[in-house]
Formats: sequence, structure tokens, C-alpha cells
Amino acid sequence: MSGAASASSLVASRAAAVAVEVDRLFDSLLAVPDDPRRRLYEAMRHAAMDGGKRLRPLLVQAASDLFNISRDSALRVGIAVECIHVYSLVHDDLPAMDDDDLRRGKPTVHKAFDEATAILAGDCLHDLAFEVLADEETHPDPFVRVELVKALAIASGTSGMAGGQMMDLEAEKASFDLPTVTRLQQMKTGALIAFCVDAAAIMARIPPEARTRLHGYARDIGLAFQIADDLLDVVGDAGLAGKALGKDAAAGKETFVSLLGVERAREQGRLLVEQAKAHLHGHGPEADLLRAIADYIVERDR
Amino acid sequence: MSGAASASSLVASRAAAVAVEVDRLFDSLLAVPDDPRRRLYEAMRHAAMDGGKRLRPLLVQAASDLFNISRDSALRVGIAVECIHVYSLVHDDLPAMDDDDLRRGKPTVHKAFDEATAILAGDCLHDLAFEVLADEETHPDPFVRVELVKALAIASGTSGMAGGQMMDLEAEKASFDLPTVTRLQQMKTGALIAFCVDAAAIMARIPPEARTRLHGYARDIGLAFQIADDLLDVVGDAGLAGKALGKDAAAGKETFVSLLGVERAREQGRLLVEQAKAHLHGHGPEADLLRAIADYIVERDR
Repeated sequence: MSGAASASSLVASRAAAVAVEVDRLFDSLLAVPDDPRRRLYEAMRHAAMDGGKRLRPLLVQAASDLFNISRDSALRVGIAVECIHVYSLVHDDLPAMDDDDLRRGKPTVHKAFDEATAILAGDCLHDLAFEVLADEETHPDPFVRVELVKALAIASGTSGMAGGQMMDLEAEKASFDLPTVTRLQQMKTGALIAFCVDAAAIMARIPPEARTRLHGYARDIGLAFQIADDLLDVVGDAGLAGKALGKDAAAGKETFVSLLGVERAREQGRLLVEQAKAHLHGHGPEADLLRAIADYIVERDR
Repeated sequence: MSGAASASSLVASRAAAVAVEVDRLFDSLLAVPDDPRRRLYEAMRHAAMDGGKRLRPLLVQAASDLFNISRDSALRVGIAVECIHVYSLVHDDLPAMDDDDLRRGKPTVHKAFDEATAILAGDCLHDLAFEVLADEETHPDPFVRVELVKALAIASGTSGMAGGQMMDLEAEKASFDLPTVTRLQQMKTGALIAFCVDAAAIMARIPPEARTRLHGYARDIGLAFQIADDLLDVVGDAGLAGKALGKDAAAGKETFVSLLGVERAREQGRLLVEQAKAHLHGHGPEADLLRAIADYIVERDR
């Protein structure tokens, strides 16, 4: 097997295992009650279960490999970050935001249910993320748990994902340059990706000043991921993606592809992946999954 | 001064002080950045600042009086619960939910800004609640901080506020009986109110089994508060309330007033307040503010 093929098969096998574990934990956390909240839980299950690449839970596992973090802790942190990711998709798909009918090949939550239920289901997944992190099952050390909460709240709020989404809304009105688009994307998708890697270091009680190379890895794959997304939005297959494509150009938004062109964007993505892997030079086989994920990020077709 | 008059003046003076402190802390937490997120921060400030009775931060202070909790800790916990309360109002006012134009006498966030900004501003206030609680400025003990996070996540999610809101949506389709309306309201408004009182006990490291009477107080004032709200919705003054009234009847929802009638509902509210105060019998003057808040809750005109 070539290096790339073995990397992609490593990602595929671990990703498949993580996807099963994520769905099993969601199934137990979101057991449908026999009362008038049934519809809320069904909407949360529709949004959270049986879909997506589960890239973020996989990243938490990959970073946890470096520090011998227990698989259960990594899974619960992965579920928490997936709750944030999924809630943001549910709200982002609403008519007042991106107005999407299709997500992960299924009707969006407000289409399958209704808008009010979609808003509440997103809000409840948002709470569930912090409830899961704060629970002692996630990690025995309360300091670790509260640091995870703080890091995730920052990564998802005004300084992270939601702040980036706000900049993205403004991008339809303004014409952002490359540094602004880079900052927007580092917030909108990069912050949660960085949290996944940082969470493992928090669980291992690695002090912040010793996380520079890991942060470098996270920043580089976060940007590479977004460049790959922008490329898929232009040259991808909507059937494989399970969602509408070509929306950025239609909305008049600047992206890495509109600013750099397809070829230079692709080149930049590959460069970032090499740079990301260089940050892992000090590590041995325990970083193989992190390396493979970096490669996968620019090679994926959805 | 009569007992009731001195109770109401105690609430008024402490509430005024709390309102100033809450606005000052929001002003510093929500300093507007000079970048494309400006509109997001302005929407959050519009929603969070200069308005409301600040009943929840006041309750945290009142319960903190029992245990000599520092005023700074109580204020930060009060801000966190106010963030959750305010975010829920912003989302609840959206066209897909209650479709309200006016809140606290001002245009609702989606009216003053737009729907997408309102959704994101609510989401960001939601994150800010947990960011504030997790920060070491809130309490020196990480175990206390993480217990606060867990309690607030549960009080605001499917088992608390948002779960109650979902039942409230279903109430338009079904005809709920008194036990179901009671459970709905215990979740929708009672859970956050109970958190305010519980938070002081968590900060004082009172074990859960020793919080029974405090929980009784919280449950009773929570229901009394909702009964008073239902009464104001029927007999209140929209100008004083700063929002539309008479909406429950228009939506065909059962409330305490529709199920009990105005007189019996009023009687039930007074009974709950006496019962709430009886839970405080073991306490001296340090519980005066909690007692005064119980009285205020049924006497208020908005």
C-alpha cells in the first residue's frame, strides 16, 4: 500500500469505529421521553445521529492517542464538540440564515419538523455539550472538566464559531480581503477544530505554553479543511456532499477559491497539510492518526 | 412602615443595586470590537443591557446572603443565569416562535437588527453564560465552577427551560391538565429560578441532601411567579409590562388562570408564597431578602 492509501485506510477504519461509538452515545443521551417533549428529542436525534463525517470526534481521539487519554473520555469530549457542531448546522440551515433544505442527505431539521422545534433542538444540543463536559464521567479531575467547558465556550461563542458566522453574514455585504477571509475561517471552522486537539492536551494537563506545536497543527489543518470545503463548493458533487453546493459564489462571498483561484487554493491546501504534519515531527506512531487526518482533509471528496 | 412595604422597599433597593452591577459587568464583557462582529455585539448588548427586573441575579444575591458568598461570585453567577434568560427571550421572540415585536419596552432583537443576527446573538449569550461560570474569577474552587456549569446546563436544556418551552409549543395543540401545566411551568420558568437558589448552596458546598428546604422555597416561588405572570397576562397593563399581553388565551393555551380562574389563581399564588417563606423558618435576618422577594413576586405589577 502507498503512504496515502494506508493513511486513508487508517482514517477510514478509525472513523467508522468512532461513528458507531458517537451514535451509540447519542442514542443513550437522547432517549425519547414519553411526554410532550417527544418531538424535541426526535428533532435532536434527527440532527445529531446517523450522519456526518464525525471529523471532530475523530480528531479528539487522534489527539488523545498522543497522551494515552482513555477512550471514554475522548468519546465524551468528541460528543460535546459534535453537539456544538450539529447545533450550529441546525441554526445555520434555518430560513433566516442559509435557508437549506438538505443536510447530510436528509431534510434539514426545520424541514423535517418545523422552525420553532429546530431552534429549540439546536439550543438543547448546545446545552447538552456543556452538560456532558461537566459530568464526572467525562474526566475525574474537576479542574480538567471546567477547563474543557471554558475552552469549548470560547471556541463556540463570539471569539470562535459564532463570531465567524457573524463575519460570514457580513461577507455578503462587504468584499473581504485574504487576511479577513483567513481570520473569518479560523474562527468559523478553525476554532472548534483547534478545540478538538486542545482538549486532549487539557485532559493530559499539558500547560498552555507547551501546546504551541499542537496549536500549529490545528491551525494548519483547520485552514486546509476550509480551503478543501471551498474547493468542493466549486468543483464538488452535491450528491456526495448531501447538501447544496455553489452557494458562496451565488451569495457573492469571497472565499479562498474566489481570492486565489482553484489551482493556487489547491496548492495552498497541500502546503498547509505538509506544514501541519511537520509540527508532529517530535512524535512517533502515536501521531499517525493525526498525520493521516491531515492528508485525508484535502483528499476527501465530500 | 408595614411589613409588606418594608419588604418591597428592601427588594427595590437591592434590585436597583443589582441592576447597576449587572449592566456594568455586561458592559465590560460585551465591549464592542472594531471588526465585522460589531453588529453581533450590538445585538447582544441590545438584548442584555438596560432592561428587565433582573430577578434572577437578585435571587442569586439573596440566596448568597445565607452563606456569606462573596458579592463578586454572586454577581458573576447572576450574569450567567441572566445570559441564559436573555438568550431564551431573544429566541422566543423570533417570528417562528412567539413572533413578538416588543420586549422590555424596546423593539425585539430581530426587529432592531434582523433574524439571523438575533439567532446568533442568542447563541452567543448562551455560550457566554458557561464561559463566565467556568472562569476562575467566578469562584476559586474548580469543583464549584464545574458543578455550577452542570446545574445551569441541566436547568436550561431539555430537562429545564427549553424542555418547558417545547411543552409550551405543544400546549397550543393539546389541552393540558393542571398537573401537566404545573410540570411545564416548573421546567419553563421554575428550573432557572431554582438554579439561582441552588447556585448559592453549590458555592457554599452545601451537600445536595441538605438543600431540601431551599429547593422547596425555590419550587414554591417559581410557581408563584408563573401564576403572577399568568394573572398579569390577563389583567395586567401592557405599557407597564413592556410587551404584548393576552397572548396565552389568544393561542388557546391552558394556564393557571384558565384552569383555576382569576380568584383561585391569586389565592394559590399567596399560599405558595407563605409556604415558600415557611421553608426559611430556620433562618434569621440573613434570609430577609429571600422572604421579601417571595412577597414581591405576587405583588408586582409587571
